[in-house]
Amino acid sequence: MIDPKQPSSQQTSSTMSDEHPLDRGLKLTEVADGLYQGEASPSYWNQVGPFGGMTAAMMLNVILRDPGRTGDPVALTVNYAAPMAMASYRLATRLVRASRTTQHWSVELLQDNVTLATASAVLAIRRKSWGRNEIAPPEALPGADVTASMDRGRGMPWFRQYDLRPIRTLGSTTDTQVHTHAWIRDEPPRPLDFPALAAVCDTMLPWMFRRRKQMIPVSTVSLSVYFHVGSAELASVGDEHVYTRSYGQVCHAGFMDSNAQVWSRQGLLLATTQQMMWIKE
Amino acid sequence: MIDPKQPSSQQTSSTMSDEHPLDRGLKLTEVADGLYQGEASPSYWNQVGPFGGMTAAMMLNVILRDPGRTGDPVALTVNYAAPMAMASYRLATRLVRASRTTQHWSVELLQDNVTLATASAVLAIRRKSWGRNEIAPPEALPGADVTASMDRGRGMPWFRQYDLRPIRTLGSTTDTQVHTHAWIRDEPPRPLDFPALAAVCDTMLPWMFRRRKQMIPVSTVSLSVYFHVGSAELASVGDEHVYTRSYGQVCHAGFMDSNAQVWSRQGLLLATTQQMMWIKE
Repeated sequence: MIDPKQPSSQQTSSTMSDEHPLDRGLKLTEVADGLYQGEASPSYWNQVGPFGGMTAAMMLNVILRDPGRTGDPVALTVNYAAPMAMASYRLATRLVRASRTTQHWSVELLQDNVTLATASAVLAIRRKSWGRNEIAPPEALPGADVTASMDRGRGMPWFRQYDLRPIRTLGSTTDTQVHTHAWIRDEPPRPLDFPALAAVCDTMLPWMFRRRKQMIPVSTVSLSVYFHVGSAELASVGDEHVYTRSYGQVCHAGFMDSNAQVWSRQGLLLATTQQMMWIKE
Repeated sequence: MIDPKQPSSQQTSSTMSDEHPLDRGLKLTEVADGLYQGEASPSYWNQVGPFGGMTAAMMLNVILRDPGRTGDPVALTVNYAAPMAMASYRLATRLVRASRTTQHWSVELLQDNVTLATASAVLAIRRKSWGRNEIAPPEALPGADVTASMDRGRGMPWFRQYDLRPIRTLGSTTDTQVHTHAWIRDEPPRPLDFPALAAVCDTMLPWMFRRRKQMIPVSTVSLSVYFHVGSAELASVGDEHVYTRSYGQVCHAGFMDSNAQVWSRQGLLLATTQQMMWIKE
């Protein structure tokens, strides 16, 4: 019997069982220069592929693990073009342009030589500068420790990879704009890094569901994430919950947007994100 | 002598003089399949290239004029990698993926075979659907007709291509978030289309200038525009002023963001936009 509180010798080796599902899903083999192969992760599955956040994590991860990578991500955009099969996939990366402090990357996600998603990322060596939060950190709200976790047994597989603790929704359904607040972290806990943070940016419940009091099929077509901290600051989050505040601006003529901020428990704005979703009706 | 109020035979031909500077700046010659050549526009010049909005317009325009294009733009992301010389440039386009109703494009801007900027765009055939504005249209505010135009003689050349009428800035410099409102249209007037709308999304004064009460060198590294109307609705704007509301979320470790909404005079949300800017100090 292994006492879970006692470190065992097995924990130092990387077996299937002790590896975090996110790390397992991000695992890559280099096939050629700038071409990597991985296996679709059943853990992060949604209806016709991984949930959009996992795809974003995959596409950012391949850049960050490149030996030629310099700096931390500042901006990431992922465009979702086609469903993905539960099979192996390839990521083709290209360093488009680099200066001493900045890099521009593009990535394509492929199966059977067909492009399923494209991504672009700007990386930069962060430095001290003038700084200011124009938006206030979340007000004092119930901590993740006293907030009830959502039932993770329901819904799509990817939903079980998060400990999601909705706090409250500000504004009634007749108000102009509804703001939804939640604590979230990877389940099991895992120190937050940039790929995991990119994934978190696609975990918010679309505001339309609340407005229409029903689930309507939606599908992200384009997701942008703006990162506001460097890797040292991000590392300070550890495996704590982060705080998400999400809201919409508009739904019109077949598409809706979704916007969110991701904060650390200490009130650091880690990322902001905006996406466009196709809606079925 | 030509009476400007009388249509002349010259107005039906497309001479240098009667062509709008934006159309002149967007003019392209097809060099090869998916490869186009144009001339950098002095009219839209900023310090080390066209202002970011013009670059966005150029990269969206080349997609929209492609004979294989289907649908209207839904999302556009432009990443700015390097300065541009006042010389001829090339745009290389690629239709990455297409379905019956959606297209994914990527574009590169080149000079001397060096990539200066990359862009991706999602296009879609818009259709009727459930719809809702989660943000309220601008309150009743002074119309563009009674608002003073800014002195266009000062600043960078591109500034003279707009009739910009600041309305007011909501919030004091001690408030959490400053919102800046303005009317803007092309100068001379030109019916608004998607490239022109993309350009407008980069015309807002960075909020940091107001906070610090001085101009600090900034440079957009990544700009995303989300379009919320189809071409028929956009055409209804004509050459009227549009209303912009801009605000920031954060500046930290060498980069700041900027966010904005663009409204028609009739209260239609035309576009929302977010960008990340490098700041000098």
